[in-house]
Amino acid sequence: MATAQANAADVVVVGAGFAGLTTARELVAKGRSVIVLEARDRVGGRVLVQPIGNGQVVDVGGQWTGPGQDRILALAGAVGVESFPTYGAEAQHMQYRDGALASYSGPVPDTDPALLTEFVGTIQRLDEMAAEIPTEAPWTAPHAQEWDAQTFQGWMDANLTSDGAKAFMRTVIEAVYAVEPHDVSLLYMLFYARAGGGLMYLTGTEGGAQQDRFDGGAQLVAIKVTEELGERVRLSAPVRRISQDASGVQVDGDGLSVRGQRVVVAIPPTLAGRIEYRPAMPTLRDQLTQRTPMGSVIKANAIYDEPFWRLEGLSGRAVSDTGPVKFTFDNSPRSGGPGVLVGFIEGGDARRFSSATEAERRQAVLGCFERYFGPRAAKPRKYIERDWSAEEYSRGCYGAVFPAGTLVSCGAALREPVGRIHWAGTETATASVGYMDGAVQSGERAAAEVLALLN
Amino acid sequence: MATAQANAADVVVVGAGFAGLTTARELVAKGRSVIVLEARDRVGGRVLVQPIGNGQVVDVGGQWTGPGQDRILALAGAVGVESFPTYGAEAQHMQYRDGALASYSGPVPDTDPALLTEFVGTIQRLDEMAAEIPTEAPWTAPHAQEWDAQTFQGWMDANLTSDGAKAFMRTVIEAVYAVEPHDVSLLYMLFYARAGGGLMYLTGTEGGAQQDRFDGGAQLVAIKVTEELGERVRLSAPVRRISQDASGVQVDGDGLSVRGQRVVVAIPPTLAGRIEYRPAMPTLRDQLTQRTPMGSVIKANAIYDEPFWRLEGLSGRAVSDTGPVKFTFDNSPRSGGPGVLVGFIEGGDARRFSSATEAERRQAVLGCFERYFGPRAAKPRKYIERDWSAEEYSRGCYGAVFPAGTLVSCGAALREPVGRIHWAGTETATASVGYMDGAVQSGERAAAEVLALLN
Repeated sequence: MATAQANAADVVVVGAGFAGLTTARELVAKGRSVIVLEARDRVGGRVLVQPIGNGQVVDVGGQWTGPGQDRILALAGAVGVESFPTYGAEAQHMQYRDGALASYSGPVPDTDPALLTEFVGTIQRLDEMAAEIPTEAPWTAPHAQEWDAQTFQGWMDANLTSDGAKAFMRTVIEAVYAVEPHDVSLLYMLFYARAGGGLMYLTGTEGGAQQDRFDGGAQLVAIKVTEELGERVRLSAPVRRISQDASGVQVDGDGLSVRGQRVVVAIPPTLAGRIEYRPAMPTLRDQLTQRTPMGSVIKANAIYDEPFWRLEGLSGRAVSDTGPVKFTFDNSPRSGGPGVLVGFIEGGDARRFSSATEAERRQAVLGCFERYFGPRAAKPRKYIERDWSAEEYSRGCYGAVFPAGTLVSCGAALREPVGRIHWAGTETATASVGYMDGAVQSGERAAAEVLALLN
Repeated sequence: MATAQANAADVVVVGAGFAGLTTARELVAKGRSVIVLEARDRVGGRVLVQPIGNGQVVDVGGQWTGPGQDRILALAGAVGVESFPTYGAEAQHMQYRDGALASYSGPVPDTDPALLTEFVGTIQRLDEMAAEIPTEAPWTAPHAQEWDAQTFQGWMDANLTSDGAKAFMRTVIEAVYAVEPHDVSLLYMLFYARAGGGLMYLTGTEGGAQQDRFDGGAQLVAIKVTEELGERVRLSAPVRRISQDASGVQVDGDGLSVRGQRVVVAIPPTLAGRIEYRPAMPTLRDQLTQRTPMGSVIKANAIYDEPFWRLEGLSGRAVSDTGPVKFTFDNSPRSGGPGVLVGFIEGGDARRFSSATEAERRQAVLGCFERYFGPRAAKPRKYIERDWSAEEYSRGCYGAVFPAGTLVSCGAALREPVGRIHWAGTETATASVGYMDGAVQSGERAAAEVLALLN
């Protein structure tokens, strides 16, 4: 078994997000020795909590799960972390559109019937198209070439008639992919939707991907897994070089060097491309890392003495056509206090606001909160933000996106091992791609892949 | 003046291609101290020669220049390297289309008049569209959003009627950009064409961007500049980390550490993204490096005892609709002997053939040469190939391309300095982008930018 002093193991894992941690956990369960190298001084990757006093925390990274995301739920269950419903199923939600505020209930904001019909019809049509895409190899879909050659913006321009429907779909792309419709190919957009359970599921709360949260925060699951793994996990250990030869791999980082039979690189492609490889990566793999940028998200939590909106019969959820915050949720701890509103700045807005000052962002965010929930929302006792694009070891969220042309050209390199180097991470999943659940799936797959090849 | 032992200079330059060398040369001319760090054991970047015996060389990287590319011509003149015309202006060229071989003369292959009309009309229309794009800031063009939201493939599908015209345009994209039409946005394609002097110029030989070659090879210009710079240029010095604070920059590489007031990073964005920065890069700059992949080219030279095609009245040029080699040129030394045919595998073909064996590539390349020039072409005395995507410190050629959505989202970060870090490289040029001439322009601009800020 690896100890803190060990400099060799059967498998070296790069990255202690859910993909890397799951890989390690699976391998250890089979009696294999593992060393996990994590660049940051913490585990969890794109999943992170921050304390808000009295022993409570708030999620500042990935946080939601939904029905059918069985792998992350099983992992959480295995380490004793419970999930609980996102607040507000029975309450009124707010919508802000064309300069007017209104409340609504149920899954879809009230709107004029013609627009709603076009929007729902569009979602159905896209989900039908997505149904022909094999999630194991979307580049082999019958219309792969045609759909990868166009951006989703191009598809909208050619297929949607009303500006309202385009605006709705833009909001969906920003909310789910954290990019603008021109940033992603139609094929990738459809593949991701299919892998995740459809656009209605991905945008939904009750019955959808935002249904449940983890008590103590999603990072608690990663922390508990890390406690199991003990000294196998090494923090503040950024990997700089991976060398391989017939006998094994050597992984070098700042002040460290470990050896293994194989290595699993469990970080997004764009970050994997920043590692030096000996020998260098083959063309297709390198091209993949050159052209799979991360989405852009700034997540902002405002902490209040109490969830005052609940007293007014409100859910804390808002959808808006006016940024920078176009979505909010009640993000209070399970206990119900303190009150927390969370809002997201996504896509182009996130890129722009990334170069603003924190004071400017705070003002813009709280301005949105106030617009949706009144003057009390403008005066939180604490404001906590996280710009995931500025995080050196994420460089964006929620996940990688594939611009036009990329999935067909380079998709096959996503999971293809390069000698003794294997790939994990939610970007390599075939279900729940981009979600914690996909990260766990990728770790299970990578562990099985490596196990079959170990001496 | 910097010496081999110096560990500090006014300016540190990363990369000894034409951009970095020009930056250094301009700064030295103004009396500034410079250290140039080059990852490879040679200078020239994407420009390289290889010996073919008897003191002669063949270009295996960038090699051509044309009228109006005054900066590279001036630099060559300054260091005493002459240019000479590409062979074959008066000879017959070959074309292979729909399985048939034919010869033609002049700039455009013979084809049926309707197709020719559509093709020429398309080029004219694209050049007219390109005329509205300001090369200093293409993201501000009147139709920037619309044109960046679509791939060039999407534009072709919507605007070209005949398969023949689409096939012609595909060949243009492969030849000029080394990618497929779905890999590049309409806006970037037009910007690059405008910056380079128009599509007819970029695809042309006499009067175009393939008009002239350098006697002794294009790398000779870089080598001569390096001789002037002397020990300021340090080879085999890959840069791994750039740190900056209020007092200056520190540049760390494998076994080296140098300091300067400022640093000019003169490598393509995707490679610049692999350097670690302290502090980390701002979001937009990092996003740029995540989404500007290099094109894909394999360049193959076949050496014969003599340029036998010349004796048959042929130029050695072929255009073909059938890959993997769709273009050839006579690449014999200025003296006319030995005979050299050069062919290009580009875009998708290059990505595919990158994972073939050299024997498979050789067979495929020589098969094409034989198809165009007969059985003697199948039996060279030497075969020399270079897969630029496999080169660790280029990772593709001819240059970076911008997929849909990227130029509008991230283009502004191309030249914007980040504190004491400045950017050069042909990708940052506003004229002859992607060409040696653009690299020189970028070096001149970066040197002027830095000079204005030095103590």
